[in-house]
Amino acid sequence: MQGIVLFAHGARDPEWARPFEAMRERLRARRPEFPVELAFLERMEPTLEGAVDTLATRGVSAITVFPIFMAQGGHLKHDLPRMIEAIRAKHPRVPIALASAVGEVPEIVEAIADWVLRSVD
Amino acid sequence: MQGIVLFAHGARDPEWARPFEAMRERLRARRPEFPVELAFLERMEPTLEGAVDTLATRGVSAITVFPIFMAQGGHLKHDLPRMIEAIRAKHPRVPIALASAVGEVPEIVEAIADWVLRSVD
Repeated sequence: MQGIVLFAHGARDPEWARPFEAMRERLRARRPEFPVELAFLERMEPTLEGAVDTLATRGVSAITVFPIFMAQGGHLKHDLPRMIEAIRAKHPRVPIALASAVGEVPEIVEAIADWVLRSVD
Repeated sequence: MQGIVLFAHGARDPEWARPFEAMRERLRARRPEFPVELAFLERMEPTLEGAVDTLATRGVSAITVFPIFMAQGGHLKHDLPRMIEAIRAKHPRVPIALASAVGEVPEIVEAIADWVLRSVD
């Protein structure tokens, strides 16, 4: 059983988390067999470690972390790989893979271009 | 002629801007009749004011600013409306509209869910 973590930056305003909650709900609705958890770098809970602990308790055989960041800055290039190394040491039996940033995915770039052109046409 | 601004956060690492440059290139390739400029809140150039100045010089009749942010935090709720008010005062003949955040757009949430499920299936 493959677990999914949607990893976002976090913010002070609780409403900030709404789009990530919507993504989690869409994934749960479309494919309820995949356990999905949110995780945040800062200012919101759970942490990435907390989300991985939850998925491990639910018995997942592997986890993929999806950074829901538009672009790769210091957080994704440096902080996140270090966090994942530490979490792998804690959960040696659960392989943890890391996906690219949202803005690096051609289909998502295209969906954003579609939205922009729908709005101005 | 409608001008488009893709407004992103900005970061120290020049590579961070790559996804936004890719979005701009897709828009220019698909619809070359719409002038498109990037703009950044901090750490990168041009500013939003600089991008609007460029579009105004090119003779656009209206501008829509698209915040390429996953979610609405303090930057979008407070800083950006204030910045746009100041820019409207400088360019009273160019109506400036503000779109919602990327993560509030159902089709983009769906594209992100598609990507996640393609990756784990």
